[in-house]
Amino acid sequence: MGRVDEPNDRSLAVVRVALLGCGTVGGGVLRLLEQNRTALAEKVGATLEVVKVLVRDTDKARHPECPRHLLTTDPEEVFSVPGLDVVIEVMGGLSPAGELIERAIARGLTVVTANKLLIATRGPTLLAQAAKARVDLAFEASVGGGIPVIRTVSEALSADRVESIVGILNGTCNYILTRMRVAGVGFQTALAEAQELGYAEADPSLDVEGKDAAQKLIILSMLGFRSNFAADACPTEGITAIDTIDFAAASRFGYTIKHLVVGRDLGDGISLHAHPTLVPKSSVLANIDGALNCVFIRGRALGPCILVGQGAGALPTAVSVVADLAQVARARLEGHEGLATRSLHTGPRALQPLSELVSRYYLRFEVVDAPGVLAKIAGALGEHGVSIQEMVQEGIEDSARLLMTTHSTREGELKKALSALENTAFLRKKPGFLRIEDI
Amino acid sequence: MGRVDEPNDRSLAVVRVALLGCGTVGGGVLRLLEQNRTALAEKVGATLEVVKVLVRDTDKARHPECPRHLLTTDPEEVFSVPGLDVVIEVMGGLSPAGELIERAIARGLTVVTANKLLIATRGPTLLAQAAKARVDLAFEASVGGGIPVIRTVSEALSADRVESIVGILNGTCNYILTRMRVAGVGFQTALAEAQELGYAEADPSLDVEGKDAAQKLIILSMLGFRSNFAADACPTEGITAIDTIDFAAASRFGYTIKHLVVGRDLGDGISLHAHPTLVPKSSVLANIDGALNCVFIRGRALGPCILVGQGAGALPTAVSVVADLAQVARARLEGHEGLATRSLHTGPRALQPLSELVSRYYLRFEVVDAPGVLAKIAGALGEHGVSIQEMVQEGIEDSARLLMTTHSTREGELKKALSALENTAFLRKKPGFLRIEDI
Repeated sequence: MGRVDEPNDRSLAVVRVALLGCGTVGGGVLRLLEQNRTALAEKVGATLEVVKVLVRDTDKARHPECPRHLLTTDPEEVFSVPGLDVVIEVMGGLSPAGELIERAIARGLTVVTANKLLIATRGPTLLAQAAKARVDLAFEASVGGGIPVIRTVSEALSADRVESIVGILNGTCNYILTRMRVAGVGFQTALAEAQELGYAEADPSLDVEGKDAAQKLIILSMLGFRSNFAADACPTEGITAIDTIDFAAASRFGYTIKHLVVGRDLGDGISLHAHPTLVPKSSVLANIDGALNCVFIRGRALGPCILVGQGAGALPTAVSVVADLAQVARARLEGHEGLATRSLHTGPRALQPLSELVSRYYLRFEVVDAPGVLAKIAGALGEHGVSIQEMVQEGIEDSARLLMTTHSTREGELKKALSALENTAFLRKKPGFLRIEDI
Repeated sequence: MGRVDEPNDRSLAVVRVALLGCGTVGGGVLRLLEQNRTALAEKVGATLEVVKVLVRDTDKARHPECPRHLLTTDPEEVFSVPGLDVVIEVMGGLSPAGELIERAIARGLTVVTANKLLIATRGPTLLAQAAKARVDLAFEASVGGGIPVIRTVSEALSADRVESIVGILNGTCNYILTRMRVAGVGFQTALAEAQELGYAEADPSLDVEGKDAAQKLIILSMLGFRSNFAADACPTEGITAIDTIDFAAASRFGYTIKHLVVGRDLGDGISLHAHPTLVPKSSVLANIDGALNCVFIRGRALGPCILVGQGAGALPTAVSVVADLAQVARARLEGHEGLATRSLHTGPRALQPLSELVSRYYLRFEVVDAPGVLAKIAGALGEHGVSIQEMVQEGIEDSARLLMTTHSTREGELKKALSALENTAFLRKKPGFLRIEDI
């Protein structure tokens, strides 16, 4: 780190930063660095100077914050900057982001990343490399945008056992489900709205199929439960099959529907799953609407701790990136990098098969409106030990709709019961089921 | 720091800790240190060993966690422990806690405290002493028990401007107001319930008069707005005058009543106030019930960030104390203490007088049921530029009750209008007013 002469003749250290990628989040990072220059310098004890910006195309139109003379398409140019300190990776994707981060670590540079897929896929490996090289690898922005959930799980709860992590971690899903509930519109209409507002991508499948949220849970599980599961290890269901009928039924039973990720430390293993879920209307989670995200962490000693905020967006995400940058820059400046990174330990933990999950369920059957049908359904459920808690029956033309909630049951048994029913003549369509989280 | 031989023959450093005070929180700290011994050692890279416990009376019955042979009533004995590293202060109050912390800092010891009153009163001074001595002074547990609000405001938001901090920071008030709303009981009954459940002290005045919450806001303002106000600088009102009538009226207008602390950075000054407040039923704050606490922080770039959890209680508070301990112990072990403490800067900021506050208000008048009274009240309000937004009138025997909300108005003007009305013959009792926070 060099020193520059400030106008007031007081010399201040400089932390030299390279930005890998300059899309939405990168633009936000540059804007925050500019807007809060003085406050950040005071906090870090050094000025944070962006010295190089790696992009794919230097001719592309950029945010006004992006200084054109710093742009390069050549990673060599980035790594040959003399006295480079920190690399901020906001390009996303596994490659070349992963290789560039490895290269930075190998060079003794500290890394800040917002890359959810990369941390979910290779987090433990990259963290081990960083720990060995005694540099930091900070990734607050990889989960929940501006919500300080990484910091909370890995620092605030360091003195406790994390028992469960339940969250609304995809703003697109939450926006769509909110609109379906509040405006009574169907999935496709709500999705189109989300796309128009910029909440959903042109290809929304990663979001609406639940994979984005599930990858975030893999990261939180790594921190909270010290697991090292694969990025796609979490059983995942999306929201595309949710019907407005389900909202009405859930409401009758005192619930609303949210896309949740659910992680629990069972002692001898970890339970992870991501899917649309019935949550009680009185729960804080039920009242998190629109594109907001929410994480509900339960510590053995702490009890409940709930964090709510904007899970995406250029500026909220950039706040997390720059907060990480301030912290690692300060650590580097004072010559004790990698402390936080070295204190992270993960290891093999068993993942509970979803068939072993014990939960309450919401079930939807569309059947021929004939006597004895309910008895047959109740019988098939009962044979597998599934007991009905509440039930309502609605007539729809010449059919009937049976909507019910069950007492706690093992998911494998429930699925056997539903399979047994699937080929019966009185069933008009495949039964629908959703898990209930009484949180 | 010494090193001890572990059973597996791997030597591990020891961080030596003295506990000042061994009440509820101190017992919780000892329990967590015991229960999470291995995980903490892994995280810190050293075992955390409590070597001395300062108490007022060694004969008093203690929690089972409290090791009797470590007890002493003599501070000299604490400070003469060879190789002492960290002092945890959980005795509370200004004195002798303050002097003991100063002494620890002067000796180069790192300090963790849960002492709200002390940090609110002398935070900037003690932090400056710690920064100068290059030791840490951590105080996450001083506000919001187990909620990581100190960490969030001072670290997660370090790259942003904190625009406002609004919170439910007193569990006793929140429990009482929740019971008044849900069960329709009066203040005294709800208070008795809170006392029975251990939420309220035998002398509940610090809580129900709002002072406890106001002191917490002083600490959050120090971190979020970099102010250094006196502990009693925040204009404060308690909940003792709230009536069940007010809940019914608030509900009619779409609101509920919460005891809030409200802090805003106005650029040329800071606005701080603590009082019962109308909040919209749809707000997350409105749905934080019972003894839970909640802090709603708004960052210029971040937008809203909401934290919810248990604001008191031995174990939640101890989680924050031990998380702080883990962090400062690690820093001390690696020889770079005081980093976080040194990055905190406060300075004189102007406090906006409450008369300058611009807010919407809820008003309650009990008047003689006679024609022309409403016109006189509306006239008096109008003369001071206070305009009514919504109004309902209720008959009560030979009187009438006028309940209304106003448009935004300056508090000084509203108070002039209410003063002008106070001595009129048609008023049966002093008008009631509450601020509205459309959050």
